[in-house]
Amino acid sequence: MKHLLSTADLSHSEAVLILDTTAQMAATQAREVKKLPTLRGRTVVNLFFEDSTRTRISFETAAKRLSADVINFSAKGSSVSKGESLKDTALTLKAMGADAVVIRHQASGAPYTLAHAGWLDAPVINAGDGTHQHPTQALLDAFTIRRHLVSDSVGADLRGLKIVIVGDVLHSRVARANVHLLHTLGAHVTLVAPPTLLPVSVETWPCDVSYHLDQTIDEVQPDAIMMLRVQRERMSSAGGGFFPSPLEYTRLYGLDGRRMDRLPPHAIILHPGPMNRGLEISAEAADSPRSVIVEQVSNGVAVRMAVLYLLLTGDHSEATQHPSTPAKEIQ
Amino acid sequence: MKHLLSTADLSHSEAVLILDTTAQMAATQAREVKKLPTLRGRTVVNLFFEDSTRTRISFETAAKRLSADVINFSAKGSSVSKGESLKDTALTLKAMGADAVVIRHQASGAPYTLAHAGWLDAPVINAGDGTHQHPTQALLDAFTIRRHLVSDSVGADLRGLKIVIVGDVLHSRVARANVHLLHTLGAHVTLVAPPTLLPVSVETWPCDVSYHLDQTIDEVQPDAIMMLRVQRERMSSAGGGFFPSPLEYTRLYGLDGRRMDRLPPHAIILHPGPMNRGLEISAEAADSPRSVIVEQVSNGVAVRMAVLYLLLTGDHSEATQHPSTPAKEIQ
Amino acid sequence: MKHLLSTADLSHSEAVLILDTTAQMAATQAREVKKLPTLRGRTVVNLFFEDSTRTRISFETAAKRLSADVINFSAKGSSVSKGESLKDTALTLKAMGADAVVIRHQASGAPYTLAHAGWLDAPVINAGDGTHQHPTQALLDAFTIRRHLVSDSVGADLRGLKIVIVGDVLHSRVARANVHLLHTLGAHVTLVAPPTLLPVSVETWPCDVSYHLDQTIDEVQPDAIMMLRVQRERMSSAGGGFFPSPLEYTRLYGLDGRRMDRLPPHAIILHPGPMNRGLEISAEAADSPRSVIVEQVSNGVAVRMAVLYLLLTGDHSEATQHPSTPAKEIQ
Repeated sequence: MKHLLSTADLSHSEAVLILDTTAQMAATQAREVKKLPTLRGRTVVNLFFEDSTRTRISFETAAKRLSADVINFSAKGSSVSKGESLKDTALTLKAMGADAVVIRHQASGAPYTLAHAGWLDAPVINAGDGTHQHPTQALLDAFTIRRHLVSDSVGADLRGLKIVIVGDVLHSRVARANVHLLHTLGAHVTLVAPPTLLPVSVETWPCDVSYHLDQTIDEVQPDAIMMLRVQRERMSSAGGGFFPSPLEYTRLYGLDGRRMDRLPPHAIILHPGPMNRGLEISAEAADSPRSVIVEQVSNGVAVRMAVLYLLLTGDHSEATQHPSTPAKEIQ
Repeated sequence: MKHLLSTADLSHSEAVLILDTTAQMAATQAREVKKLPTLRGRTVVNLFFEDSTRTRISFETAAKRLSADVINFSAKGSSVSKGESLKDTALTLKAMGADAVVIRHQASGAPYTLAHAGWLDAPVINAGDGTHQHPTQALLDAFTIRRHLVSDSVGADLRGLKIVIVGDVLHSRVARANVHLLHTLGAHVTLVAPPTLLPVSVETWPCDVSYHLDQTIDEVQPDAIMMLRVQRERMSSAGGGFFPSPLEYTRLYGLDGRRMDRLPPHAIILHPGPMNRGLEISAEAADSPRSVIVEQVSNGVAVRMAVLYLLLTGDHSEATQHPSTPAKEIQ
Repeated sequence: MKHLLSTADLSHSEAVLILDTTAQMAATQAREVKKLPTLRGRTVVNLFFEDSTRTRISFETAAKRLSADVINFSAKGSSVSKGESLKDTALTLKAMGADAVVIRHQASGAPYTLAHAGWLDAPVINAGDGTHQHPTQALLDAFTIRRHLVSDSVGADLRGLKIVIVGDVLHSRVARANVHLLHTLGAHVTLVAPPTLLPVSVETWPCDVSYHLDQTIDEVQPDAIMMLRVQRERMSSAGGGFFPSPLEYTRLYGLDGRRMDRLPPHAIILHPGPMNRGLEISAEAADSPRSVIVEQVSNGVAVRMAVLYLLLTGDHSEATQHPSTPAKEIQ
């Protein structure tokens, strides 16, 4: 594992290794002083072609907790945001000695280009590219599900769990990343969306598809339900019925108290944030004891620490060889 | 003292404790290497819904001098700047493990909501909210006055001092914060402003009010005079005489050499910055030996170090028990 | 050497000292952990009145590699970008305890004012001012040339080398800075540009001038050729033939494979970046083995480390007294 570009690339054992390492990192975060010296002297560059404050500060926090130096490179709107010069940006970061590059880009595939064109030696981490992938988001979702519904035991996966993902799958890199990772980890995924918000390619994805939320909840009896964020700007610009109206969306695809009550008693609720309260999720659902949305954020820092650690130290063995001594060998 | 939200909340002993701790911090800042290890491993988030480079870098410098990690979260213009989602922002910061949140917000009261809604465990520091409060500014003003006109002796307050504050009180969180703090510390405050730039509620504030600067200087014989910053954008959009013209403002309420000469010989001049030289204060006054405006900036870093230290270590005793060994017990 | 404002101020021995120190810094950058503790506890402020992500992150990386704290102060568009208040900004930075100020400003001469008006004690480093100077760029160019064409031996200069600089000299602080530094170091410089893109004052500069690139290459047989960046926005707004059209520019002044083949076999190609591939330089030339453009970026971090080290420690002796023990006395 040299880069982290897509959950579709992750083998079962790589995915489980990341979850196991995340569990160790999460343990260190419960301490008074959360900082580890692991990456002292290393430089992590946050190369963001799109604004995303939450994702950026999650990576920044993760890198600083590992004692790395962080350089924020906001390329939005600058000359570097155009095609060819991604090469020169990469050569610049290499020349400056970047030890890892976290990239967010509006174009699907940009992180692949950055990683595989031979411009950089450093590991590349995809922090969201177009409508394509967002692997650390899927990993934190999987970690959160595992911790709640399985255990933190080393090697545990999500075998047999049933997960329902609801919303605008067409534009969602989160959905795409989750379907692949959850499948790899042995879970069964059902996507629920209006027909206009599903990509044509969904037929080839390793999951079921439904247009009806209530019916799916009743039939699948999911262990976890994940509500996708609605992009309000898409709604207003939709025209012609491509996107339902907000009221209609909430009625058909929103998670409110009534729908929540139809879930199995142990089922948990996820959302990648930031939420549109009252649209895809009601305040009652968002703040209920079943909601693990806040833990997702917290696990996001731990999963990014794990990914930075694994890619930058290149040491994949210890975490699995000494599973019973969390955090110690990391220090 | 769990948060720092308003100077109106500070008791006399809390206010004096902060000033005493600031004196210790200021002492460390005179050294070659100014850095203390006190907050190593802690994360301070600067959550700024409004731009304010000066205040942001003062808090950032203070936190770094205490070896904390700093995350700058500029929320201006982003989706988080709207009502309800302050909650989700807070939950996000909590989940990421923020140890303190410094908040600047255009809405009066936002820091209270952040601190008291139960979303965060971390201390909240108000770095300016609407026209309401700016407690660290008032504390640095009080510290500067104490150092010049009283002493740095532990426990000293401002008993008996006469302070005049001049300008747009209506829109000034600095004036509001100062009136309450200076009153708590035993000083006597007189506000001077045109009638249209005073809030109705000023009648209930613990201070005197005047419309005439020359007359007030002659009658009060102030120990310190504080010139408020004029917001030029208010002037131009004022219409109908709400705000005087710039020329008129300078003539009636500006501090120039002539007015400076009417002050008692020991009186000092304060300004929260950035100054409009030639408008509320002349260059002659701003650069005179009576001016302590540059020291205010320097004391701003020390006061923010003191506040971060007190709120984050929760240790209020040592600073007062061992007053004669500055900085040592802090390390 | 108290500040670094212009290469025209540097004596031969100062310039060589910086190059020697850069060689030591570059040696430390080849190690696994690149960080030195040299400037721990010091604060470097990046005061940028113009956006320049590349230069900013190069200085930020350099300062962090020396363990300094970095405060980014983006003054672009804010109230501080106007005349008089540069003074108040300077007083603010001084009061906050800035140990060095790196300034980028659209006005030629602003760094001089900042350094010499008596507002600051701290060293000032010019990171580009208007069309005037960009000394660290010239130093990294000279270092790159020395390393490739001379040696890293302590005390080496560029005596006898022939350098050709091509492009919009009129608006280029890079050209100006290079002409003076290369001359000081003993090299012979020829500028090549259309007559409309040469300043009147060029007659007084210590270099030759030509309007014809092919002819100059043939006659001079340069050891190094430096292609200046074309500001596309100048082209479009030019009107009336002040600036050639892009096609014409490329034909007359661009470096392509054909022109590259006319250079002496050992000649190297420099460009300050970011490149307009296909305009002033072809991809073939930019990516050829003769190109040292990526090394320039890498050397940029080392030269900025050297400059921060020399100005902040004020210790100019060790580097020259113990030339054979690189990096050790720096630690």
